[in-house]
Amino acid sequence: MDIEELATGVIASERRALARAITLVESGRADHRAEAMRLLAALPQDRQALRIGLSGTPGVGKSTFIESFGMMLTAMGKRVAVLAVDPSSSRSGGSILGDKTRMDRLSRDPNAFVRPSPSQTHLGGVARRTREAVRLCEAAGYDVVLIETVGVGQSETVVAEMSDVFLLLLAPAGGDELQGVKRGIMEMADLIVVNKADGDLAATAMRTCADYSGALRLLRKRPQDPQGYPRAMTVSALQDIGLPETWETLQTLVNWRRDNGYWDRTRASQARYWFEQDIRQTLLAQLETPAARASMAELGEQVATGALDPADGAARFMSALRRDPD
Amino acid sequence: MDIEELATGVIASERRALARAITLVESGRADHRAEAMRLLAALPQDRQALRIGLSGTPGVGKSTFIESFGMMLTAMGKRVAVLAVDPSSSRSGGSILGDKTRMDRLSRDPNAFVRPSPSQTHLGGVARRTREAVRLCEAAGYDVVLIETVGVGQSETVVAEMSDVFLLLLAPAGGDELQGVKRGIMEMADLIVVNKADGDLAATAMRTCADYSGALRLLRKRPQDPQGYPRAMTVSALQDIGLPETWETLQTLVNWRRDNGYWDRTRASQARYWFEQDIRQTLLAQLETPAARASMAELGEQVATGALDPADGAARFMSALRRDPD
Repeated sequence: MDIEELATGVIASERRALARAITLVESGRADHRAEAMRLLAALPQDRQALRIGLSGTPGVGKSTFIESFGMMLTAMGKRVAVLAVDPSSSRSGGSILGDKTRMDRLSRDPNAFVRPSPSQTHLGGVARRTREAVRLCEAAGYDVVLIETVGVGQSETVVAEMSDVFLLLLAPAGGDELQGVKRGIMEMADLIVVNKADGDLAATAMRTCADYSGALRLLRKRPQDPQGYPRAMTVSALQDIGLPETWETLQTLVNWRRDNGYWDRTRASQARYWFEQDIRQTLLAQLETPAARASMAELGEQVATGALDPADGAARFMSALRRDPD
Repeated sequence: MDIEELATGVIASERRALARAITLVESGRADHRAEAMRLLAALPQDRQALRIGLSGTPGVGKSTFIESFGMMLTAMGKRVAVLAVDPSSSRSGGSILGDKTRMDRLSRDPNAFVRPSPSQTHLGGVARRTREAVRLCEAAGYDVVLIETVGVGQSETVVAEMSDVFLLLLAPAGGDELQGVKRGIMEMADLIVVNKADGDLAATAMRTCADYSGALRLLRKRPQDPQGYPRAMTVSALQDIGLPETWETLQTLVNWRRDNGYWDRTRASQARYWFEQDIRQTLLAQLETPAARASMAELGEQVATGALDPADGAARFMSALRRDPD
């Protein structure tokens, strides 16, 4: 593959080049990995998109929100990319963006780029691929990159660690539902958006929003938040209500963070985080080779029967690994 | 050090030999580690103590309980060892068993062995040392090993993973207090013991016990539990009330588990767990050398400024680590 040509295509914002580049960073093959690193090194660092992380459980209207919000942005002249971190797709064969009919209008918009979720083996791998896909979209000149995830396990943390702002999408619900959102997720959110604030659900949406506004006020104040943030608001993605206000609310937050140095500081600490995560994953990946698995199984059996002490077994495993690292 | 002589002393249950052997497994020096492994390999596998994990926050009367419970057991002719996993002692200089005046009577009992908590660097290291100290106490012929911890962070998990039964000690408290015990800790417990069921607190202790009995019934049934377990009961360690019942309750549980194969199965899976943990810790310990730290700091700075992509920085770090592993 001609990596320089591919880089040129990405920088010129050719859709096919961008799609091929993302496929390259998603590949697990060692030679592809080396090419992906050359590609990333060849891209300019000076183009930054607004990276919006977006989480919401199934049923809150995530696709509808992304489509309506994305169409609004493209109508404003912005270029929008949509990516996904989907921890479930390795098992289910893809639950986010896998369905081609989802976000149909946005997908056909020439100023939008909607990428289906890759099939993957584990969250660590997904994280790196999505993070690198974000970089590619930025280099291709997209203004906004939406990174979507379902609220499962660690995926919100992964998305929050690669986003400039993090948005939690909720559906209207009774007061009891408040406790359904884990405190840790609430603490990540810069903006809570209660969707479906239309028709019969409008009043419930308002109450839910008020409940979350109250809950957000109880959280510990973060230095990266201006007065009044994090905050909660209502929208109807279906009826296009409240979406410009959502954008303005995000813009106000982002501008404050840029002016006060938090934008750069957060990006720097996120890069460091991924650097360290990558190292840890690479070290632990040594345990996943067929030879390592076989050795662990054999020594583990001796440890389980009591023939070997756990530390002794571990020391023998490490000697074998050092003798024959592959 | 003559390891064979030390092993002989431990097996003969000489207190000084046992104390020296524990000091050896606690040492961080590489040559001591090699000796510790030789020592452990020289010990018989056929002596098993009942390993009782015990957790409770400061103020529940943990020392008083251990002392009274231990004295009861030695009076029954059992030999009792007390160890501690203390995640806080590296910072505070020792908060469990560090005070020499604690468990004074038990410490002077010839059939008891009370070991102060070691000073340590991190929980991973503590875990291995305590686990190996348990093995030494077993080889020295102790019948019961009590492994104590305070309810801080991951220390309960560490203790539960090296215990045959896990006991959670609580103080009498209002109903609201129920939520103070994390669900994860409740799910580890085989027995909840509400202490201080004497004098003015007796009635409150009964109510607290009833609350927890109810809460335990709501937990998912585990295969290793006979009918009626996990359960809650009240004691007064100060007035020696309920301690024989606590022992009987544990005995009933342990006998059932032995008869139904769970004792051996749990020990085997625990050994496997520590084997795998040890391997992971050894791999990640490569990041803690001065050279690795310096390299991570330097590359991390380039990653933070955007001069290097996180994955590229990680790849460079790994190359350097492979070239020069120490």
